[in-house]
Amino acid sequence: MATMQRLNWGLVGGGDGSQIGFTHRAGAALDGRFRFVAGALDIDPVRSRDFGTSLGLDPGRSYGNWRELLDGEQGRADRPDLVTVATPNVTHFEIASSFLEAGFHVLCEKPMTMTLDEAHRLVEVAASSGRWLVVNYGYSGYPLVRHMRAMVARGDLGAVRLVVAEFAGGFMADAADADNPRVRWRFDPALAGCSAVTMDAGIHALHMACYVTGQRISTVSSDFASLVPGRQLEDDSSTAFRMDGGTVGRLWASGVAIGRTHGLTMQVFGEHGGLRWSQEHPDQLHWTPLGGPTQTLERSARGLSPEADRAGRITIGHPEGMVFAFANIYRDLADVIQAQLDGVAADPLALSIPTGEDGLHSIATVVAAATSARDGSAWTPV
Amino acid sequence: MATMQRLNWGLVGGGDGSQIGFTHRAGAALDGRFRFVAGALDIDPVRSRDFGTSLGLDPGRSYGNWRELLDGEQGRADRPDLVTVATPNVTHFEIASSFLEAGFHVLCEKPMTMTLDEAHRLVEVAASSGRWLVVNYGYSGYPLVRHMRAMVARGDLGAVRLVVAEFAGGFMADAADADNPRVRWRFDPALAGCSAVTMDAGIHALHMACYVTGQRISTVSSDFASLVPGRQLEDDSSTAFRMDGGTVGRLWASGVAIGRTHGLTMQVFGEHGGLRWSQEHPDQLHWTPLGGPTQTLERSARGLSPEADRAGRITIGHPEGMVFAFANIYRDLADVIQAQLDGVAADPLALSIPTGEDGLHSIATVVAAATSARDGSAWTPV
Amino acid sequence: MATMQRLNWGLVGGGDGSQIGFTHRAGAALDGRFRFVAGALDIDPVRSRDFGTSLGLDPGRSYGNWRELLDGEQGRADRPDLVTVATPNVTHFEIASSFLEAGFHVLCEKPMTMTLDEAHRLVEVAASSGRWLVVNYGYSGYPLVRHMRAMVARGDLGAVRLVVAEFAGGFMADAADADNPRVRWRFDPALAGCSAVTMDAGIHALHMACYVTGQRISTVSSDFASLVPGRQLEDDSSTAFRMDGGTVGRLWASGVAIGRTHGLTMQVFGEHGGLRWSQEHPDQLHWTPLGGPTQTLERSARGLSPEADRAGRITIGHPEGMVFAFANIYRDLADVIQAQLDGVAADPLALSIPTGEDGLHSIATVVAAATSARDGSAWTPV
Amino acid sequence: MATMQRLNWGLVGGGDGSQIGFTHRAGAALDGRFRFVAGALDIDPVRSRDFGTSLGLDPGRSYGNWRELLDGEQGRADRPDLVTVATPNVTHFEIASSFLEAGFHVLCEKPMTMTLDEAHRLVEVAASSGRWLVVNYGYSGYPLVRHMRAMVARGDLGAVRLVVAEFAGGFMADAADADNPRVRWRFDPALAGCSAVTMDAGIHALHMACYVTGQRISTVSSDFASLVPGRQLEDDSSTAFRMDGGTVGRLWASGVAIGRTHGLTMQVFGEHGGLRWSQEHPDQLHWTPLGGPTQTLERSARGLSPEADRAGRITIGHPEGMVFAFANIYRDLADVIQAQLDGVAADPLALSIPTGEDGLHSIATVVAAATSARDGSAWTPV
Repeated sequence: MATMQRLNWGLVGGGDGSQIGFTHRAGAALDGRFRFVAGALDIDPVRSRDFGTSLGLDPGRSYGNWRELLDGEQGRADRPDLVTVATPNVTHFEIASSFLEAGFHVLCEKPMTMTLDEAHRLVEVAASSGRWLVVNYGYSGYPLVRHMRAMVARGDLGAVRLVVAEFAGGFMADAADADNPRVRWRFDPALAGCSAVTMDAGIHALHMACYVTGQRISTVSSDFASLVPGRQLEDDSSTAFRMDGGTVGRLWASGVAIGRTHGLTMQVFGEHGGLRWSQEHPDQLHWTPLGGPTQTLERSARGLSPEADRAGRITIGHPEGMVFAFANIYRDLADVIQAQLDGVAADPLALSIPTGEDGLHSIATVVAAATSARDGSAWTPV
Repeated sequence: MATMQRLNWGLVGGGDGSQIGFTHRAGAALDGRFRFVAGALDIDPVRSRDFGTSLGLDPGRSYGNWRELLDGEQGRADRPDLVTVATPNVTHFEIASSFLEAGFHVLCEKPMTMTLDEAHRLVEVAASSGRWLVVNYGYSGYPLVRHMRAMVARGDLGAVRLVVAEFAGGFMADAADADNPRVRWRFDPALAGCSAVTMDAGIHALHMACYVTGQRISTVSSDFASLVPGRQLEDDSSTAFRMDGGTVGRLWASGVAIGRTHGLTMQVFGEHGGLRWSQEHPDQLHWTPLGGPTQTLERSARGLSPEADRAGRITIGHPEGMVFAFANIYRDLADVIQAQLDGVAADPLALSIPTGEDGLHSIATVVAAATSARDGSAWTPV
Repeated sequence: MATMQRLNWGLVGGGDGSQIGFTHRAGAALDGRFRFVAGALDIDPVRSRDFGTSLGLDPGRSYGNWRELLDGEQGRADRPDLVTVATPNVTHFEIASSFLEAGFHVLCEKPMTMTLDEAHRLVEVAASSGRWLVVNYGYSGYPLVRHMRAMVARGDLGAVRLVVAEFAGGFMADAADADNPRVRWRFDPALAGCSAVTMDAGIHALHMACYVTGQRISTVSSDFASLVPGRQLEDDSSTAFRMDGGTVGRLWASGVAIGRTHGLTMQVFGEHGGLRWSQEHPDQLHWTPLGGPTQTLERSARGLSPEADRAGRITIGHPEGMVFAFANIYRDLADVIQAQLDGVAADPLALSIPTGEDGLHSIATVVAAATSARDGSAWTPV
Repeated sequence: MATMQRLNWGLVGGGDGSQIGFTHRAGAALDGRFRFVAGALDIDPVRSRDFGTSLGLDPGRSYGNWRELLDGEQGRADRPDLVTVATPNVTHFEIASSFLEAGFHVLCEKPMTMTLDEAHRLVEVAASSGRWLVVNYGYSGYPLVRHMRAMVARGDLGAVRLVVAEFAGGFMADAADADNPRVRWRFDPALAGCSAVTMDAGIHALHMACYVTGQRISTVSSDFASLVPGRQLEDDSSTAFRMDGGTVGRLWASGVAIGRTHGLTMQVFGEHGGLRWSQEHPDQLHWTPLGGPTQTLERSARGLSPEADRAGRITIGHPEGMVFAFANIYRDLADVIQAQLDGVAADPLALSIPTGEDGLHSIATVVAAATSARDGSAWTPV
């Protein structure tokens, strides 16, 4: 039995009470591949240090802000191999590029940057740095999402004709949230940019459409609507798109769909069959071969793909959940970083993680959609 | 106990082996309000007469074609009060207008006509005739579809922000059907007009969106795709639309969605809650008030609306099915025709049946969608 | 095209407002094989005659009670070929035996009789009469129930190890119904006999277990519970049983299961796979071959059995519902009666209808269960 | 912000490739309340030490077997506060009692012991030790299971009439497993005791029935069946039971139910409503108030109980899964152990964890069921 190599991990953002912070810490810890060694977790320096210490960080490595962390860690031999950036979107570019330039691998929350220009620059920074820049499209870590991708790649569907992606829930439906600062900023173009629900939620579905089909989106026609009075950005959008491999796509993104608890779904239709998956019940994938009955594929069932097998941890019938999907991103990161350290090729199965290029492409697609929406739904290249 | 008035009914089209013929006969018969007295059921005169007789028609009233039926019946005292037209689409206009002009009430299959011009003229014919022209958007007869309409009308949802309509199944997905004459004509513009799946299937969803919200569609932006090689018309489409009451809409129509057995669904989202319904399980309606848990409303449960109560026949928990939806159209027709005969006002609950104006509006919407699709998804008025 | 032979039909019971009366009339009429010619529909003679006339019966054949119907019809050349008995249970024996003795075929509602002794005698009467005595276990008419039976018969499951039958809903859960006469009598042993929910609802599930497996129940161990205070008979029961072909069974019958809208379900497990079906969604059957994914078999899909194909009427994806299940019983009856009239062998596919022997066996099973329950759940032969 | 107190944790059993070992480590780690400090993870001493070290244990605290761990740790100041016993069932009693006697708190896998006598003795050992003995009925850690318990306790259902518990899946259905040593031992009375599927799976459902209702089972009538040829113990059982608070119960346990992926379900019916829950989709609970529509309660929705709120970690719509349920047991354990260390009363919400008494009661119920089954289903006191 080879001793597992453990890597060091640092976290920026994700303070006390933050859902995303908990999810990253739990996901990074699940397989024991990362040791949490440094953090700058809160915008308030005191709370930042205290919270990190309360989580077991060495007080000297629980910092008041990300610059202190960068300064304090970059010279250490045991510095983080990977730094996760889970701060507000407006800060992603500066923080992620700083850590990449200092030679850290970076996992950045989505959307990767606020603007397309920043996204291009960040991808360039990553390229020059020789470090991994990964974007946390965490839902792509679900075993059955990976199985969809594997089925498409190995040809089970034949040519993929159509992908129908949705991220439509009721999370922005309450007009009484107009004064809620956690909601209000999303509809302020100065803070949120060109898009609200499409950039925040729809982008996950767009990435997944690309992830599953192995294609890029080439052109879009989009309709944005602001359905709760007073909003300057869209809380609902519909987008038709074309992909570079010939697949046609449809995206519905919404925050006003009351009753849809989460609302991320993926449907893929090819010559030989169709796939349907929903994030709310991620352990089942519905597969219908042309002319045959629909089959319910269960996570961890026998006979799935190596991609799905690798991504599952517990036996069939026992739900895994979203943290396990995140954990697959972390495990893949551990594999590719370790391989780089060891000077060997990484396991090809670890290489499907969403990169800076994927983050850039997703943002470019949303920007094109916003442009199309402003331009009377005219078809707009990505 | 008042003796039920029975009306006379004639059927054109719907020959032996025809699904739609069986459904009309069963729906018309279910409540005993119509007596099937005359038919011209098949394109082949001999088969037409034989099949009618085998169904119990008086041989003298089982005709070889619709003109014979019209000639033979129009002078009779016991002639049909209502004639159903269930022939191929290209013949709807001529047959329906002939019967209306001869003073028969008409129930016409959808799409009501082949062209928008015909549709306008047929509505005019109906108006001059003083007879009912009803279009068989049969799915609008489902009790819980009527309950959605009632909930919207009585304000349960508040302002309706968004309606999301789908009719997307796998019924056109098999490329091997290229030589199947029952499929091929649908993609031939000479026979099918400007649209395939949107005119054939999507139109039901468009009507239902209008039926439930009580609004008309004012403008559309649409994308049509032909996903099975060799097709000249679309087998998949995505349409964004605006309604005259301020509601925003999305329609997805598809014939290539393998695994979706039927695929007609309706989602309606308002200020105060959301509704979700699927034709495949029509006896359940999912209603989520803002901030509360989703409720599953069952057909024939206590506490629904008068509209839903009137439309249900058997006790809760026992599925009713599509023929019962059709039967609601027929029962409403019996009510409104009987009221006209009696010179009284019809039960207001009978008045939601889809009229020629509804048929016209649906066709106009599909034509506008086809125009938009040809014009780079430009927003096009209906 | 052969002219369809039409048979004459009479109905006893099922008055105005009766659910079961509507269902029988609609089911008998659906295929046009029966002409409704005579009725005695209500306990009140005036209402009985009026209601029959309102349904279109010849006034001379709309009778005040069943004896008048028997007297009036038995000498006629055009008398009913089949009489349906849908009166209160206590009257089944007398009415059904009278009609059988007079040479009518009889379809009797369930439970066939009030006592086991009556059931034995009625079966004997039917045997001497040479007429069909069929019991309306209407749920056995669902196409996918018949497909389950066909799959078992053709060996798809291998040896059937276990059948798990439930008919458990909330229809007796409201303690406020203590004074409701439509509920109260069910818990009065003088009126209801030895059992309430097991005889009323569970009996359907027991019949279906036998129908699907092709076996008889040989011995039972049962627990009866009266969960709403004041009831003298059980509103919940659990029964373990053994069948004569070696299959083990479990039955749960309940009227207090609030939230289960109807609650009839069937699960069948064999060496090679398992089946699951629910009456609330009768158009889907879940089949899991050993080691493979679960398949959702849709009614009217290609590739099912002749038994299922014959029992479906409309295309896949369009729900049929309970009346269509009843209609299959009627169509089978039309086939077997016509075959007898014609002196030919009936279509073997028509022969699965529940006979008097099946009605007797089901009652015997419930009586044995009641005996077991009184005897400390001791195993009791049927 | 108070610094979180961290406790030390040791694990016995759960070696490389063990599902249960991974689940315990992940569950214990999720909230950071336990530091994994010592282990004896495998029956093979070398593999045991190597695997522990590979997981990051100090090599001096990664032991070859549980006795070494006990000897090595009991004198240390930083010894484990809690030891989890996840070894084969036959060893539970000896290991758990040894650690309790040495003053460790113990979390023991289920079934707690092999015999009822051992169970009684272990409860006594725990009582004398003053240490917590907790049994890992991990499914009771699901937030919505805790919500069911809270709803019952606060009276939402009124008097609980009926509980229907199932743990019926296809995990023992393959006759080809006769030679599989991981299956075979379960049907050998010498190794497995008096019961197979009831002791292994049904026991979870029995515990949950008690957990949710807050009652104990007083008497049972049971039927055991061995449906795969050659098995000496049951692979299917049906049990009727009575509880000390007046609730009636039904349990179905099965290993031959092909197609039921996991199969643990719970239904609870009271005067005022009914609850339904399934482990396969643990984030939804179906609640039907008498006379009203069924509501789908989502984990982490607003307006649930403090018990449910405390047990959820991530936002609504994001699945949590089984490891999170286990983690709730660990967090509760951390609370009660810390409270004992601090000499204060524990949070009452932490006190619902399954104790040795619960483990004893569950075993006693299965033993009574086995006795009843052998005795012709005679009612047998627990």
